[in-house]
Amino acid sequence: MKFQFKYRVAWVDTDALGIMHFSNYFRLCERTEQELMNSLGLEDDETFLPRVDAHCTYKSPLKFNDPVTVYMWVKEIGKSHITFSYEIVNDLHGKVAAQCQIVVVPVDAKMKKSTLKEEITEKLRKFMDE
Amino acid sequence: MKFQFKYRVAWVDTDALGIMHFSNYFRLCERTEQELMNSLGLEDDETFLPRVDAHCTYKSPLKFNDPVTVYMWVKEIGKSHITFSYEIVNDLHGKVAAQCQIVVVPVDAKMKKSTLKEEITEKLRKFMDE
Amino acid sequence: MKFQFKYRVAWVDTDALGIMHFSNYFRLCERTEQELMNSLGLEDDETFLPRVDAHCTYKSPLKFNDPVTVYMWVKEIGKSHITFSYEIVNDLHGKVAAQCQIVVVPVDAKMKKSTLKEEITEKLRKFMDE
Amino acid sequence: MKFQFKYRVAWVDTDALGIMHFSNYFRLCERTEQELMNSLGLEDDETFLPRVDAHCTYKSPLKFNDPVTVYMWVKEIGKSHITFSYEIVNDLHGKVAAQCQIVVVPVDAKMKKSTLKEEITEKLRKFMDE
Repeated sequence: MKFQFKYRVAWVDTDALGIMHFSNYFRLCERTEQELMNSLGLEDDETFLPRVDAHCTYKSPLKFNDPVTVYMWVKEIGKSHITFSYEIVNDLHGKVAAQCQIVVVPVDAKMKKSTLKEEITEKLRKFMDE
Repeated sequence: MKFQFKYRVAWVDTDALGIMHFSNYFRLCERTEQELMNSLGLEDDETFLPRVDAHCTYKSPLKFNDPVTVYMWVKEIGKSHITFSYEIVNDLHGKVAAQCQIVVVPVDAKMKKSTLKEEITEKLRKFMDE
Repeated sequence: MKFQFKYRVAWVDTDALGIMHFSNYFRLCERTEQELMNSLGLEDDETFLPRVDAHCTYKSPLKFNDPVTVYMWVKEIGKSHITFSYEIVNDLHGKVAAQCQIVVVPVDAKMKKSTLKEEITEKLRKFMDE
Repeated sequence: MKFQFKYRVAWVDTDALGIMHFSNYFRLCERTEQELMNSLGLEDDETFLPRVDAHCTYKSPLKFNDPVTVYMWVKEIGKSHITFSYEIVNDLHGKVAAQCQIVVVPVDAKMKKSTLKEEITEKLRKFMDE
């Protein structure tokens, strides 16, 4: 099962080549993660998920106002990390714009290592690919 | 006396029209403020200066890699606010790129109203225009 | 008649004080303008609307994941400019977060002054307040 | 030989956890690349270097106003791509904050595949590690 988030490329996302700046794909991934968490009722004020690894491969450029769908799933849930995968698709023509992978680790508000509540990992497991 | 900060327009600052995005002038103003504070030894962990008003007028566009100088001065120091003024000049040809004005209010880390230490306002007063 | 755009404060919108960075309100205004234009079928590849003036007044801070509605209307349509007004409301409690005003001028892709098609100004006029 | 670029973490770089947002490390890498190119006199208006792959590993968080040095070198120069490597060091204590790798491909202003001038690759070769 993949989570889906719809987005439109904003003017500020673009750069002087007329395409979405490569750093903004990472922000779009995070925006999708936010909505996934909201959809699961996982707004947890006490656990944060800073990134320890972030990787995108760019396949075809996005332009201003392009409609996109971000497909997001959980690749791995370890003891102290989660790996999220993303595919960003340009809905104008169905081409993959980028594929990304982001590894997060749970911490508390003081940046000390923490663990995700079992309730949360349970819900996230539904988004694992087999 | 005006504080000066040198900057080069970054690629991510630009948009699909090939010019610096209007929101990034505000960020450049804040970047200048940071260096002004550093130059005065005013790194104060306990007082923050959120903005209550921000205004830019755009005169001539900036492009990627343009060298700019930001001139910054203090327009007003009130009991509970400070007004900073900025002029952003394109050093390629000396044209004014933008003029900005930002009003800040001191708060503590919990966003409660605070006051600037007298030592700080004293130092800032040197940057007031008469 | 006011145009409405729903948004959720993203993690990257926030700063170390835990609130939405003041520059991001301007980006949210522009994002709203994009959707207004889309809703009117006004995607016009040949006319761009760079900003000549941008102003926000901040009333109450927004935090991560806050749901907001941006209300946008047209304050003025001149011969060579349009003034847009915005009110950003925190839907958690209905408080106004910020009020903004942005002045744009039509240019062509080479940044030469242009004019908006009569068809466009006609449609925008419906969003003028009286 | 490694290229060095000095930077200070800006307020807008931070997020609500009080640390530099992970997407901004990519922007800092690009900012460094800009200065490397400038230092080599490689401002070439006709060739652009969009990214096809971007990867950062985060080692220790950066906070507001932290002074950093970005070390940048060339890992690989292929027929149609260049791989840049980056190490971002927190000058407060010398800890590595992040390690990044970015792959770019030369294109012309219309996004058609292009090649770097031999003069440019020659100069970049000096920054290859052996």
